Amino acid sequence: MPETASANIGVVGLAVMGSNLARNLASREGNTVAVFNRSPERTRTLVDEHPEAGFIASESYDEFVASLQKPRTAVIMVQAGKGTDAVISELTARFEPGDIIVDGGNANFHDTIRREAEVRSHGLHFVGMGVSGGEEGALNGPSLMPGGTAESYETLGPILRTIAAKAPEDGEPCVTHVGTDGAGHFVKMVHNGIEYADMQLIAEAYDLIRQGTGKSPAEIADIFAAWNTGELESYLIEITAEVLRQVDAATGEPLVDVILDAAGAKGTGAWTVQNALDLGVPTSGIAEAVFARSLSSKAAQREASADLPGPAEAWTVAPEDADAFIEDVRRALYASKIIAYSQGFDEIISGAEQFGWNIDKGEIAKIWRAGCIIRARFLNRIAEAYADDPSLVALVVAPYFRDAIAGAQESWRRVVQIAAGAGIPTPAFSSSLAYYDGLRAKRLPAALIQGQRDFFGAHTYRRIDKDGVFHTLWSGDRTEIETEPSWH
Amino acid sequence: MPETASANIGVVGLAVMGSNLARNLASREGNTVAVFNRSPERTRTLVDEHPEAGFIASESYDEFVASLQKPRTAVIMVQAGKGTDAVISELTARFEPGDIIVDGGNANFHDTIRREAEVRSHGLHFVGMGVSGGEEGALNGPSLMPGGTAESYETLGPILRTIAAKAPEDGEPCVTHVGTDGAGHFVKMVHNGIEYADMQLIAEAYDLIRQGTGKSPAEIADIFAAWNTGELESYLIEITAEVLRQVDAATGEPLVDVILDAAGAKGTGAWTVQNALDLGVPTSGIAEAVFARSLSSKAAQREASADLPGPAEAWTVAPEDADAFIEDVRRALYASKIIAYSQGFDEIISGAEQFGWNIDKGEIAKIWRAGCIIRARFLNRIAEAYADDPSLVALVVAPYFRDAIAGAQESWRRVVQIAAGAGIPTPAFSSSLAYYDGLRAKRLPAALIQGQRDFFGAHTYRRIDKDGVFHTLWSGDRTEIETEPSWH
Repeated sequence: MPETASANIGVVGLAVMGSNLARNLASREGNTVAVFNRSPERTRTLVDEHPEAGFIASESYDEFVASLQKPRTAVIMVQAGKGTDAVISELTARFEPGDIIVDGGNANFHDTIRREAEVRSHGLHFVGMGVSGGEEGALNGPSLMPGGTAESYETLGPILRTIAAKAPEDGEPCVTHVGTDGAGHFVKMVHNGIEYADMQLIAEAYDLIRQGTGKSPAEIADIFAAWNTGELESYLIEITAEVLRQVDAATGEPLVDVILDAAGAKGTGAWTVQNALDLGVPTSGIAEAVFARSLSSKAAQREASADLPGPAEAWTVAPEDADAFIEDVRRALYASKIIAYSQGFDEIISGAEQFGWNIDKGEIAKIWRAGCIIRARFLNRIAEAYADDPSLVALVVAPYFRDAIAGAQESWRRVVQIAAGAGIPTPAFSSSLAYYDGLRAKRLPAALIQGQRDFFGAHTYRRIDKDGVFHTLWSGDRTEIETEPSWH
Repeated sequence: MPETASANIGVVGLAVMGSNLARNLASREGNTVAVFNRSPERTRTLVDEHPEAGFIASESYDEFVASLQKPRTAVIMVQAGKGTDAVISELTARFEPGDIIVDGGNANFHDTIRREAEVRSHGLHFVGMGVSGGEEGALNGPSLMPGGTAESYETLGPILRTIAAKAPEDGEPCVTHVGTDGAGHFVKMVHNGIEYADMQLIAEAYDLIRQGTGKSPAEIADIFAAWNTGELESYLIEITAEVLRQVDAATGEPLVDVILDAAGAKGTGAWTVQNALDLGVPTSGIAEAVFARSLSSKAAQREASADLPGPAEAWTVAPEDADAFIEDVRRALYASKIIAYSQGFDEIISGAEQFGWNIDKGEIAKIWRAGCIIRARFLNRIAEAYADDPSLVALVVAPYFRDAIAGAQESWRRVVQIAAGAGIPTPAFSSSLAYYDGLRAKRLPAALIQGQRDFFGAHTYRRIDKDGVFHTLWSGDRTEIETEPSWH
């Protein structure tokens, strides 16, 4: 047991994410890091392999807590769920008022809200913190999204700023106090939802180019690498080129051709959509991306459906049109990506209203500029849009994005048309375009839906020309009456 | 207080749905119906207005329970939520083992599972029952989806068969024992999700015809009426014609043009999608329908977006092409509708597996043939498909539906292309087509997504050529290792 409390921060849970975060913390001047893992072998391995880190190792919670300076600050990095509750309970039993428990796992923000209230009742701070950037980010600089009290951030903020990724544009650390209680995990959830959409859009772009032009994955890697020097510049575009360029050693084939085309999911994409449904926010691009993954994993259905009828004629792009087609796809990708982010920020705005968080949207865009999976050049444009107009009603109406879509939309439409004709599934491209056209529609057929609902369920409707709630006596004389909204 | 227990069934909650269901019950030979409402005025009004029903009225729970023959059977028809729990608690306190409490409200099936376990612990039966058909259905014949124990259905079934709608094809009552505990409310939820998709598809068809041909709502009513004589024959198509034909007395305009185009929702559509996400079942058509409604209600966003750039050229269908275009739309609607039902039945199949229900899919299709909002001729085809192959892996691969889509798909593609080019939002048409093309794709770009996930998060992948779980050492020498799935 350490003789004095010598660590300014501790990490509980030393699987790869926790180990890497601990090493990141230890590498920054001024930090001494206590580490603890339920099975001590893992602690010993970490300490042995990284003597440079100067870790304070503990083999019990008592030791771990004793090694922390006050106010004690411990970051939990265990698999989200019951394991998290168990660690919180151990720490809560030993911590003193003013101490800070941070959950850096992928918790559901509803759990974080519950845990925050529980931990707070003991006089402690509880901070649900989104950590993005995977293993590499945890080690070298993640994007960090802490919630919890503003007071806890006074202690935690300076430490987190040392380990966070730094934005390439201005060197600012990618961390901010997102909002109280579950705000950090909520925003991390939406980040992941946007990530699902972005990945699906990239996958659709790749599929169209591959099928349309017959180019090899390596050739398409070059296209993505070229895209990565322009407005699409982003980590996901960059790694797409890397993945497409990879050759499988065993077969000599492109790796992407030997990977089973069944995409997995860890649940945060689904959460994003489920909460969007609770909030009444259309996040159709994210939903299509989540569903595209689940569809890809339905092996039996896909096998049984493989000979369902498709277009009579095979589709290819004439060689002389390939460059124009690829540029159309690039623009479609960019426009669809704007929609995905716009929908994601809409969900953040609605979540903030619903749960009473004061979230600075521009700050969120800024802390996603480095360290996280969706880091991208155009997050600067999002930050600028919210700086220009903090109450911006939708990202797509900000001048920069409006102009971007104006320049892309004809290409976007052509790509959706080509895909529909060719029988190539582009659920996210198509859905994003339909959403965009829905937003700008002067009049939607939702009026007919209201008429149907009033007909079969007396659900009532409003009128364009006067206030009030109305019902037509459909099974009577079909006159209209003023009424009240119905519940059934 | 009645001197003897003279009613074979009772209804608690006498708003319009409860009153109508009580009147329906009372109108069938052999039934004597006890009625109770928290505010007795409503009970008195119902009894006074319907002396022919011979209701046994009560003004207290004690009286109500005393008026019921054993095994007592009471149907709760109150707004879903805490009110339901309150009534259950009152009845549970007075009922005796073997008695049956039925919840005919729109409960969330998770609540029904919880309530069933609680009520069962008192030795009583609890039946969550989906009731579809709105006010008119409740009065003249609803489609009924009871869950709960098979034993309770021995008492309840014969009563429910008297009041249920009768299928036009064979006169069979539209009621079956769906499955245990929450199965009835689950299936009702999916019914409503399909209803959302069906309504959105109809709305898109209407919008395309209106904008493309300039036909008036009354003229389009004639088109829907004609469609209602063919394979699209259904209640929703029928009432669409009625709604489109309706003229607003105040303005002389078509009613659909004076109804505010902001569609409301009561939540069951969102539940369907949220549970589909939990179950990993792609229900993209339903999701797009739910999101289209929420988008329509975003007044501020829509106003700010109304001048966002659209297609350079206005689109109309040449008069001589109008009939062909309308036929294309009809086929697109039919194909998309098949997808919506296929996705809905997939959710039922997955829900049954997840929650341990033995659900006969063909029976579900049969009890939706009358009384409910989605009643349609083609439900017979669904029932036949599941009768032919009870383990049918997807509705679209059944020969009838496969052929139907084969005949429709070229039209479907054209319609999606036209909408994308014309800037008319068709989220449900487009999404259904993308889903169909995804199902039948020999190879999906999900492989690229797996590669990306492995790159940034070491999420691992499977291979097409051997078993096992693999990871490429992307930040190392890029060799491949066999490994285990990661959790983060």
